Amino acid sequence: MTQNIYDDDAFFAGYAQLPRSQRGLAGAPEWPALQALLPPLAGARIADLGCGYGWFCRWAAEQGAARVLGFDVSQKMLERAEAPPRDNPPYDRVFYQRADLETLRLPSLSFELVYSSLTLHYLDDLAGLVRNVRAALVPGGRFVFSIEHPLFTAPSAPQWARGLDGRRCWPLNDYQREGERITDWLAPGVRKRHRTLATVLNLLIDAELAIARAVEWAPTPQQLAQQPELDEELDRPMLLLVSAQR
Amino acid sequence: MTQNIYDDDAFFAGYAQLPRSQRGLAGAPEWPALQALLPPLAGARIADLGCGYGWFCRWAAEQGAARVLGFDVSQKMLERAEAPPRDNPPYDRVFYQRADLETLRLPSLSFELVYSSLTLHYLDDLAGLVRNVRAALVPGGRFVFSIEHPLFTAPSAPQWARGLDGRRCWPLNDYQREGERITDWLAPGVRKRHRTLATVLNLLIDAELAIARAVEWAPTPQQLAQQPELDEELDRPMLLLVSAQR
Repeated sequence: MTQNIYDDDAFFAGYAQLPRSQRGLAGAPEWPALQALLPPLAGARIADLGCGYGWFCRWAAEQGAARVLGFDVSQKMLERAEAPPRDNPPYDRVFYQRADLETLRLPSLSFELVYSSLTLHYLDDLAGLVRNVRAALVPGGRFVFSIEHPLFTAPSAPQWARGLDGRRCWPLNDYQREGERITDWLAPGVRKRHRTLATVLNLLIDAELAIARAVEWAPTPQQLAQQPELDEELDRPMLLLVSAQR
Repeated sequence: MTQNIYDDDAFFAGYAQLPRSQRGLAGAPEWPALQALLPPLAGARIADLGCGYGWFCRWAAEQGAARVLGFDVSQKMLERAEAPPRDNPPYDRVFYQRADLETLRLPSLSFELVYSSLTLHYLDDLAGLVRNVRAALVPGGRFVFSIEHPLFTAPSAPQWARGLDGRRCWPLNDYQREGERITDWLAPGVRKRHRTLATVLNLLIDAELAIARAVEWAPTPQQLAQQPELDEELDRPMLLLVSAQR
């Protein structure tokens, strides 16, 4: 089973302080780029894998989605998601369910969109999930997700260093050594899974999903002006966004 | 126009000493992985963009290709390619032509395979070439190429360094800063073009070619046993191989 670090008290407390927790989608700098990959949501049936606080689920309902199912392994996350606004339109079209994404079975041919934000790098069996997603999509349906970029997850010492020219650099190694990575982020011992970019793409292709777009996220000039610290992302992308089509 | 470094005397002399120049396809460790991406060649019409010494063209003729057109910007390369074996079957089905790939216009709907080995990172207008390739392929035809991996072309100081844990690392930076890179490889001032991996894939998608496979090349255990120095490739891939389908 996937590690459920989000129910760790220290991790959850730290996570609650992140801009993306406090401000929702507007607090996630990659959101405009991820949003640009989405199909029309009006009338769409949507599954959100790793829905967290439910920010995306609620937003999708506001866009006119017919039905939004949010899944998360974390009880604490779902308690936040279930908090008001809840029972009034459009939020009455949102349903949350606790689920381990490695064992979840989605109904077949039931979604125009399967969405996942920053969750898939925790999964041991990504291939199984992707096959499941493919079966759950209607023909023409989209799987749109963000995942930690393989360049971010790969290194043995994932901290900025200096190159021989004195410039900041990301000390890339172990890129081809796929598997477990243990990091200390908000809490010690967070377990993630490193896969190469090619592996992620080929898993989709093998499941007969067509790659419609790949985005190695970088801040816009406007975002850089407002948040200069995002210039790190010009040296080494931290996030990979993908749109794939059944 | 693309830099024609291959007609530089010093560069050409150095290039002639490389295993892949002296031993051909067998001297290129990525060749088995690239070969695995190829469609059946018997009866196929093939264009090779950046054919160099013509190793691939001759091999494709030996596999029963109907016709193989090899293009290269370098006069010196083509002189080597034109050397015997030449006029006897199957090599009489191979034709070489000097061409700048940025201005070359391939005939429409004329090839089952367009192939290119380690050439595309020299081109300024890759998008134009990709559109050209797409138009030249028959429906179902393949564009199979290798290119220097964006991780290899990106850094401001592309030499192995040490990370904070003392391990060898590739000092990645400037990944999102696409454009010219000048390196000293065999000769000073070799001009290449850095593009992100997403850019390369999206150029194909925008030209209505479907990504069929992406390979970030790594040596096999057998290759590592024979050439231990290839273990660098486990830390940072140098080569990207792609198969795309019209």
